[in-house]
Amino acid sequence: MRRFVSHKARNLITKTSTISSTICSSSTISPLNSLSPAAAALRFLSTLHPHSMDSITIDTINPKVLKCEYAVRGEIVTIAQKLQQDLKDNPGSHPFDEILYCNIGNPQSLAQQPITFFREVLALCDHPSILDKSETQGLFSADAIERAFQILDQIPGRATGAYSHSQGIKGLRDTIASGIEARDGFPADPNDLFLTDGASPAVHMMMQLLIRSENDGILCPIPQYPLYSASIALHGGTLVPYYLDEQTGWGLEISELEHQLNTAKSNGIDVRALVVINPGNPTGQVLGEANQREIVEFCKKEGLVLLADEVYQENVYVPDKKFHSFKKITRSMGYGEKDISLVSFQSVSKGFYGECGKRGGYMEITGFSPEVREQIYKLASVNLCSNISGQILASLVMSPPKVGDESYESFSAEKEAVLSSLARRAQALQDALNSLEGVTCNRAEGAMYLFPRINLPDKAIKAAEEAKTAPDAFYAKLLLNATGIVVVPGSGFRQVPGTWHFRCTILPQEEKIPAIVSRLTEFHKKFMDEFCG
Amino acid sequence: MRRFVSHKARNLITKTSTISSTICSSSTISPLNSLSPAAAALRFLSTLHPHSMDSITIDTINPKVLKCEYAVRGEIVTIAQKLQQDLKDNPGSHPFDEILYCNIGNPQSLAQQPITFFREVLALCDHPSILDKSETQGLFSADAIERAFQILDQIPGRATGAYSHSQGIKGLRDTIASGIEARDGFPADPNDLFLTDGASPAVHMMMQLLIRSENDGILCPIPQYPLYSASIALHGGTLVPYYLDEQTGWGLEISELEHQLNTAKSNGIDVRALVVINPGNPTGQVLGEANQREIVEFCKKEGLVLLADEVYQENVYVPDKKFHSFKKITRSMGYGEKDISLVSFQSVSKGFYGECGKRGGYMEITGFSPEVREQIYKLASVNLCSNISGQILASLVMSPPKVGDESYESFSAEKEAVLSSLARRAQALQDALNSLEGVTCNRAEGAMYLFPRINLPDKAIKAAEEAKTAPDAFYAKLLLNATGIVVVPGSGFRQVPGTWHFRCTILPQEEKIPAIVSRLTEFHKKFMDEFCG
Repeated sequence: MRRFVSHKARNLITKTSTISSTICSSSTISPLNSLSPAAAALRFLSTLHPHSMDSITIDTINPKVLKCEYAVRGEIVTIAQKLQQDLKDNPGSHPFDEILYCNIGNPQSLAQQPITFFREVLALCDHPSILDKSETQGLFSADAIERAFQILDQIPGRATGAYSHSQGIKGLRDTIASGIEARDGFPADPNDLFLTDGASPAVHMMMQLLIRSENDGILCPIPQYPLYSASIALHGGTLVPYYLDEQTGWGLEISELEHQLNTAKSNGIDVRALVVINPGNPTGQVLGEANQREIVEFCKKEGLVLLADEVYQENVYVPDKKFHSFKKITRSMGYGEKDISLVSFQSVSKGFYGECGKRGGYMEITGFSPEVREQIYKLASVNLCSNISGQILASLVMSPPKVGDESYESFSAEKEAVLSSLARRAQALQDALNSLEGVTCNRAEGAMYLFPRINLPDKAIKAAEEAKTAPDAFYAKLLLNATGIVVVPGSGFRQVPGTWHFRCTILPQEEKIPAIVSRLTEFHKKFMDEFCG
Repeated sequence: MRRFVSHKARNLITKTSTISSTICSSSTISPLNSLSPAAAALRFLSTLHPHSMDSITIDTINPKVLKCEYAVRGEIVTIAQKLQQDLKDNPGSHPFDEILYCNIGNPQSLAQQPITFFREVLALCDHPSILDKSETQGLFSADAIERAFQILDQIPGRATGAYSHSQGIKGLRDTIASGIEARDGFPADPNDLFLTDGASPAVHMMMQLLIRSENDGILCPIPQYPLYSASIALHGGTLVPYYLDEQTGWGLEISELEHQLNTAKSNGIDVRALVVINPGNPTGQVLGEANQREIVEFCKKEGLVLLADEVYQENVYVPDKKFHSFKKITRSMGYGEKDISLVSFQSVSKGFYGECGKRGGYMEITGFSPEVREQIYKLASVNLCSNISGQILASLVMSPPKVGDESYESFSAEKEAVLSSLARRAQALQDALNSLEGVTCNRAEGAMYLFPRINLPDKAIKAAEEAKTAPDAFYAKLLLNATGIVVVPGSGFRQVPGTWHFRCTILPQEEKIPAIVSRLTEFHKKFMDEFCG
């Protein structure tokens, strides 16, 4: 290991001793190693003069916070941020000239352009006084202007700067409900919608509602998106894992659900809900309809709330798979409100629009009693409302331009360009990964990720042990230091013990994919040469 | 009571039996009585076919959620929303023609216009591709265009649609830190800033960090803004009350803090933090500098985190008072990082801008060890980041146009118009309230509220008891039904037992104030005639 590190990361080690020590650090719960000079000085001083605020130390804060982990913005990203600063301060100091953030589904950070129509409408709603000006018609499409007027009419007093109804502006919820109806072919009620700042707060809200103590369990896929493990930890519940079957393309087996449910029950856990992420994150699979029906039956039989993470509903890249919402599946089975409690999460951050920074999203809740709904409403009310631009964008995403609208053609072209490019990038990265020695990678049918398995040589596992880090984190750090490519170790998502993976987004710009593939291939070959010997 | 209700609310009772039953309901934790027809039908059906999802009932959800209350959007607001719908469906059906929402500090919902410069910049950042177009110069001020360019340059990749750094975009934090320095005359570090979706999520984050169990206490003013009681309840801690002294204009006495701290300690409570709201909500007082120094000394001596809610820092209406941040006070006393843990909350929702719907805000944290800061960073990371428009607006609010900028004069005029009007409205409403029999009202030195005390006649208290509602809620409901004016009962903020108040914003449009005053005066006179007899 020493030779490898000294070869690949020499510049780093000589430049920033903090980073080099981080590489071999045992810490997995410390995402913020990027201290400011002031904070670094403070840390030093605090060793001389013990902090007088003894009441608030790492030992006296809420232990649930300590327990929570969020790998997507964990240690590796902190190292990457330091490297990026290093490249800026000392160009040429590393064997790469930029950091490629493949750690997070953040398309616009990798130069994906926003959808023009959406941004036109947002700008007009932000500054409605230009709507009537003649110059505006030269700058904005006619249907964007019309849509902005419609939206303003839906907002009480046209007050885009006011707190809205706790669930979101009613008129926008009407639009979203119509969009859901158009998608599913079944009715949707605007009163079932809660607009939120992205999907994350909605997930927290449901966990807060459902979890009473560590005896309450939530069934979660493994691998899972770490929001779920983090939220369950913060709310003091128990994550009940069910393992997706990598052999069958990350298949979701009902027998596994039953097995894990029964194991949890026999351990005294009251399992309250099942999380399903479809299309899968980090695993990229799209569930089949028959499988979804089985899942619904399972939840109905066991009295579990079905928490359906459907934020990647527009990200399906293969012709043999199609997204079906669990609402549609449930209703098509003839099940209604009284049969099953179902929550669907949607976000403006994903799809072909990728508007992560706008923090828009919603949850659709069905099958809860009026009394429980009142409590959910109260939780939403404590934070007053989600941001109005995000609310507007959620309505646009669920009701984009239609045939005949002025923007329809350019909108469709932008949408198609993003989605077809994502499909090509997924394929290229998947092929490249599968060509590597000891790496197997299921196809990205949907979502924005590949989750390759790496069969690490014993010597690499031993070196990782010596460096007191998980083997896949060890791999990911070396990859970062050698290539500037940022991926998230599989251990951040949990995985079958003894297997190692990483999550890599399919989001880098298409013209950069060949370079990424060659850098990755070269790194992997050297890594294997180093550790297979 | 019967005669009064039948007189004042006859239309209401005959029209909507749901509402009339709500008026006399004992429920204080049910903010959502506005069931859709579908939900109403469901509720009926569920009595026929018991809900199969027995696992998720009001009795099996997290009891902390049940315990949480949030009066600002509570029962009275739900009644008001029904009345508003009723007025729309049947104009002339009530003795008033509009609902006046004085329940919440939501200026733009009451026709306050947004600050033009802020909205120009937001619109340009939403749709940057128009920045270079010639028409744009006809629509936007030159300094707004320039500022938009500056802000875009501060955003990595100019990606306004990307998730930012978990604490917020670094360049915007730099701007805010400069604004804090300009305000206080002491250094501010952008690494101490966490940008959040309004101030509420920041408050939740700190409560989540500090509260381990019900044995952990947070000292809160009484009356308090119910976000604090709600957040403490949701995180399972104990609210340790300290009473503001109404006699001395809601004075904050150190002896009271000491008394309550010692009482809590003797009950086994580990008090971790002190919440101070300055300017006060709902009480409207502005703390004096000497008082603030005493508070700092108290926190330092007792090892308490000082949680300073300073969201009304630009809302001071009296010449003899001035806002001083606790950061400035602390630093001017010579205390630094190692002496006291201090958190300051700020929001774009208040001030003269009142951009509630944009959900922007920040907290500045100082005096925490690097290890604890890492945990706060992790909490921020789980939700990725706050919305970018809100982040941009937070930077604008802390760095508005300056002398010489093209927008400076119009900006200053807009700002001055809002603040001087708020001061006049505060004075007019305060005078009106003080002229009422049995009502005393301290002056609104700052913030957006008046919190008059109503000395209710015994007969009214008895009638409230019969209606199973708090006496001030009883008064507020009758006021709403008679006048359309929505206020929040003092019981929603807590108050000295046996005293009764309500919170009324100073936000209705200035031209409506005379009508509000006369309606309120007429109602109050009739109420007293009714219940003093």
